[in-house]
Amino acid sequence: MLPAHSNKKADKRIFTKVMAQRYVRIQNQEGQIYYGLLQLSLNVQVLDAPPWLQGQPTDLTLTPVNYQILAPCAPSKIVAVGKNYAEHAAEMGTPVPSEPLIFLKPPTSIIPSEREIKYPPQSQRVDYEGELALVIGDYAFECTPEVAQTKIWGYTIANDVTARDLQKRDGQWTRAKGFDTFCPLGPWIVRELNPGARLQTFVNDNANPVQSACIDQMVFSPDVLVSYISQVMTLLPGDLVLTGTPEGVSALHPGDRVRVEIEGIGRLENTVAPR
Amino acid sequence: MLPAHSNKKADKRIFTKVMAQRYVRIQNQEGQIYYGLLQLSLNVQVLDAPPWLQGQPTDLTLTPVNYQILAPCAPSKIVAVGKNYAEHAAEMGTPVPSEPLIFLKPPTSIIPSEREIKYPPQSQRVDYEGELALVIGDYAFECTPEVAQTKIWGYTIANDVTARDLQKRDGQWTRAKGFDTFCPLGPWIVRELNPGARLQTFVNDNANPVQSACIDQMVFSPDVLVSYISQVMTLLPGDLVLTGTPEGVSALHPGDRVRVEIEGIGRLENTVAPR
Repeated sequence: MLPAHSNKKADKRIFTKVMAQRYVRIQNQEGQIYYGLLQLSLNVQVLDAPPWLQGQPTDLTLTPVNYQILAPCAPSKIVAVGKNYAEHAAEMGTPVPSEPLIFLKPPTSIIPSEREIKYPPQSQRVDYEGELALVIGDYAFECTPEVAQTKIWGYTIANDVTARDLQKRDGQWTRAKGFDTFCPLGPWIVRELNPGARLQTFVNDNANPVQSACIDQMVFSPDVLVSYISQVMTLLPGDLVLTGTPEGVSALHPGDRVRVEIEGIGRLENTVAPR
Repeated sequence: MLPAHSNKKADKRIFTKVMAQRYVRIQNQEGQIYYGLLQLSLNVQVLDAPPWLQGQPTDLTLTPVNYQILAPCAPSKIVAVGKNYAEHAAEMGTPVPSEPLIFLKPPTSIIPSEREIKYPPQSQRVDYEGELALVIGDYAFECTPEVAQTKIWGYTIANDVTARDLQKRDGQWTRAKGFDTFCPLGPWIVRELNPGARLQTFVNDNANPVQSACIDQMVFSPDVLVSYISQVMTLLPGDLVLTGTPEGVSALHPGDRVRVEIEGIGRLENTVAPR
């Protein structure tokens, strides 16, 4: 387990050693897409395949001016979980489910860090929902929680943006959570996470987080969630599981900047813009 | 517009001329996947790309012993529509929605014709839902119905298999409709469809259909559905829109054989088996 905070007094060489490896997905100026390792210099060492498919480092390294960062994976599906923190279920006026409540977001909803969330004209109420995202590394079907844990390749950050008015009106959550740009994801993937890591969401320049909870306050833990989903549908390498949001959800407005942080991973930051 | 039924007295050459071209997706004995044109001989002329990406015929032709048929497309997402026939909404005890009600099925739920529907142990009530499926041929975002019509590349048949007990229990429909094998699809795609074409579902050897309705009885027509979805999320080439099921849904049991037919397309046929 890597420390959630590195020692700022450590010299750069030590820092490099203790800092978690960051796995990114990038696009070069010709539009080619690569998986890679983000170095401390912000150069990216390119891999020859997604890392969960045993991608190995190549001789190609790209400097920051030569790439833009994409969302760190391109899942065949995004399975998300509702009401997985007791205080959030309470603020929504609903009980904690006795089983995980799953729903899907379309892959077209994904945007990387720093891309704009587009406020859809159909809604008058769009909320942030900061979440821990699990990146699946291997085919998972009918797994026990113990086996499911081995299928989790890494961790990243998601914002399960939700048109709250449409969520209530439709009953089904697909439209409310399925708009293009409604799944900010990234900025990168790390392999390990402290179970007590804190998730915090900030809006604009306010120093006080609007959401703040430890990952271990989830009702159903990552291994249980992946096991549960795997009893229904096969998870594929690169697929994504969003683990639910803690209490403190509230509205975003065009011009707002929203930042989700998880200790040991990083910061996912996006601005809201009118469509 | 092609006739829904060909004249059985016509000679083979004439028959070939009037029969709609059938676009298939197949796998050869080495596991390679191709899109192709199904000939009257049941040979498949292989295309060099999906036909909606301008795939052109190659010199390769496979005979029936050398391929197995797959579902005719591999969508990045399946957008389905609930309660889109008034009589079906009534039999579910719910009103017809004033807007299309959309939900998602995961791509892992797709199986081709003749593959087994696996009855999941979590459910005691699994229903068939015969449906017309639209295959999207081009990127579609914020389309009018007129433009949306041009994004529909072709038509195939789907069975939106649903664990009715879990649908009611969960509220969200993702689990109930998301099990592996819960989206039989195919057997092939045709480019045109008579708007008055009849959809019928048959169970086992019963000559009377359990579902029988004309496509034009939909509450929201295909162009309106694609337009509506495109106001929310970008549809990609090869994506799938399921247009809802007519009245007559009922339970399947392990050992049952279910067949969905649409005039001018063909027959989608699957057996139910215990998982």
